[in-house]
Amino acid sequence: MHRTRFHAAALSAALLIATSAATATDPADNPGDEARPRTTQELLDASSATDWRRPDPANTLYMELEGGRVVIELAPDFAPRHVANIRTLAKQGFWDGLTIYRSQDNFVVQFGDLTDEGGTPKPLGDAKPALPAEFSRPAAGLPFHRLPDPDGWAPETGFAAGFPAARDPAGGQAWMAHCYGTVGAGRGAAPDSSTGAELYVVIGQSPRQLDRNITQVGRVLHGMELLSVVPRGTGPLGFHEQPAQRVSIRSVRLASEVPAAERTDIQVLRTDTPLFDAVVESRRNRRDGWYLQPAGHIDLCNITVPVRVAD
Amino acid sequence: MHRTRFHAAALSAALLIATSAATATDPADNPGDEARPRTTQELLDASSATDWRRPDPANTLYMELEGGRVVIELAPDFAPRHVANIRTLAKQGFWDGLTIYRSQDNFVVQFGDLTDEGGTPKPLGDAKPALPAEFSRPAAGLPFHRLPDPDGWAPETGFAAGFPAARDPAGGQAWMAHCYGTVGAGRGAAPDSSTGAELYVVIGQSPRQLDRNITQVGRVLHGMELLSVVPRGTGPLGFHEQPAQRVSIRSVRLASEVPAAERTDIQVLRTDTPLFDAVVESRRNRRDGWYLQPAGHIDLCNITVPVRVAD
Repeated sequence: MHRTRFHAAALSAALLIATSAATATDPADNPGDEARPRTTQELLDASSATDWRRPDPANTLYMELEGGRVVIELAPDFAPRHVANIRTLAKQGFWDGLTIYRSQDNFVVQFGDLTDEGGTPKPLGDAKPALPAEFSRPAAGLPFHRLPDPDGWAPETGFAAGFPAARDPAGGQAWMAHCYGTVGAGRGAAPDSSTGAELYVVIGQSPRQLDRNITQVGRVLHGMELLSVVPRGTGPLGFHEQPAQRVSIRSVRLASEVPAAERTDIQVLRTDTPLFDAVVESRRNRRDGWYLQPAGHIDLCNITVPVRVAD
Repeated sequence: MHRTRFHAAALSAALLIATSAATATDPADNPGDEARPRTTQELLDASSATDWRRPDPANTLYMELEGGRVVIELAPDFAPRHVANIRTLAKQGFWDGLTIYRSQDNFVVQFGDLTDEGGTPKPLGDAKPALPAEFSRPAAGLPFHRLPDPDGWAPETGFAAGFPAARDPAGGQAWMAHCYGTVGAGRGAAPDSSTGAELYVVIGQSPRQLDRNITQVGRVLHGMELLSVVPRGTGPLGFHEQPAQRVSIRSVRLASEVPAAERTDIQVLRTDTPLFDAVVESRRNRRDGWYLQPAGHIDLCNITVPVRVAD
């Protein structure tokens, strides 16, 4: 009964790559087969060092949970003020000892200082208590690597600064798109009511209706599986009703403040290269033998940007 | 600090409805406010009994896990032969004592008879050992309630027999769409290598590239939160490497074979009514006060069909 394993392998080769400690190897030796489109795996196997980038440690967060480390890349190109605040909060150890207090199925987990139940809010210290909304930014000045397919939510989609993004040429605005793993700053009714102290992470179907309605600050590069399995809260909207159900946060630190030997050596595939275009095409039309009907299309949030972590 | 809770409430009212034991109440009393578009919640509060349907117990599966019951509605309109096989397997108790042996982040959980490690495959009994592929079906004869928005993966999307579906008028075919909660039958390289004994459930971003490449057999109506939090497998493709990591399945039964008093009294919003159209519109353009920029669009897999369960 090879069925199960084969099915699995054919379905998900690239997802495997995206979450494993893959390292580049030599291209497969396929003499006489030059014209055949390559699979995602073959493309990544043939990648060179310059196809990958190392995220800036000064804009990388390590969230330490009992189960391991979640690595978040911040997006100063989209939300510079929120990112600055989050960096200040991380330096102060703001989230240390706080909790993930919400897990709503097919939507988000959320963490920070849960003060709805009373008690004194944790001081923000040197972080700003109020920030302007950063829902979108001028398209001008932001290199945008556009995808070939149409999107129902925005005139254009693609990647900018390595993040899934959308753009409206008529309005002259660009914004991050809410995909799986997106990190955003919770807000109230007022658009400028977020500080970055309360953060959510998308764990379900891309909630693109949130685009341009809330400030996104980054995305999870590694360790999503630690967040996505947090037992769903039984309270309204996935809030954990009992403190024991919440997940303790040991610490959230900037990678740049962690000793080099303790950092996660992570690399992300660049999204502005011919190789990335080829990877996207290999996802638009799967070349794995298992697929009988290539889609000829891919939505922005179906593209998982490959990540590799050195042992 | 009302911020967090308000944010949550405004973001996700309908998701809450979809997973809670909501019961219909009288419409909100809004004299003089007749012209205002109603929110999803207001529409559901004003629904009548005929807006809802009870799934056929003979095509409903109860999967009993330690954490509770998962309710799956089978789709005989799309995969009659696989559904017949699955009904036979359930009557025989085929899955009782087997496991969920795979959990791949942002993709699928999978369960059945894991025989890759050797051992004798569990006999299929009266179920057929081979079935034809049921990737799509003739569009003719299938009532199709079309959505207003374009879709990149298919010429038309909508709902048919209550399931998210797509249609190609030119080719005369219709098929179920892979959305969060979709249940499908694992297969090998050959299109006709699935029997329904190995099943997967989508727990991540809609993998629409699978559409027309594999037989879908139904979807989870209730209890997704029991599947979506299964710790991800650390083996390739999310397979659980250690038997202890797998989730035991107590039983899988047809609802029609369970005593009436032990059944889950579940109702699903009909998808072929004016009310459903209004619900979809309330999701295309959110009327909750929190939203500042209505999307004016919704993708098929962003529509969560409301479900309610009696106490």
